[in-house]
Amino acid sequence: MAKLLQITFAFHGPFGRQMAETFSGLAQSISQEPGLVWKIWTENENALEAGGIYLFEDEKSARAYLEKHAARLKESGITEISAKLFDVNSGLSRITRGPC
Amino acid sequence: MAKLLQITFAFHGPFGRQMAETFSGLAQSISQEPGLVWKIWTENENALEAGGIYLFEDEKSARAYLEKHAARLKESGITEISAKLFDVNSGLSRITRGPC
Repeated sequence: MAKLLQITFAFHGPFGRQMAETFSGLAQSISQEPGLVWKIWTENENALEAGGIYLFEDEKSARAYLEKHAARLKESGITEISAKLFDVNSGLSRITRGPC
Repeated sequence: MAKLLQITFAFHGPFGRQMAETFSGLAQSISQEPGLVWKIWTENENALEAGGIYLFEDEKSARAYLEKHAARLKESGITEISAKLFDVNSGLSRITRGPC
């Protein structure tokens, strides 16, 4: 069953285009992660927060990625990480055009 | 600019198919909200949490919806609501097949 992973953390930039340039290599790497269907990269320059919404094929791949990514974030000094794993309610999401 | 709205709250069910039956009318209504591109409905029966990931066409429609939905949730007894608004980093999201 597909799993949605919702990650949020305090982040002090870079944002926008500079963020895209800084992390394009990481994005290429993440795009190859086993079981990843897609990731949306989120950022809020006013709230100094960033994160990602991920859809994985199953819980196992979502948990394996989370362990790897949380360690990577901590190595780069990001410690206030909120990570939540959800099932997708596909019946309701279909009605609201959810891409999953 | 598109805005992503991430809502999470404590939720004691129903989950799964029963959740879909209970809220299908609400989902039909939400699908008509001005500016809504899509909503993914999230649920976690073990953590007793639920929520939604929304993509809106712009910040104005996202904020108008959030005000309306938060009031509706509170009326139904749901008070511990986390709501976060984000920009989407489209350059990075394209690399990771993000549907936005």
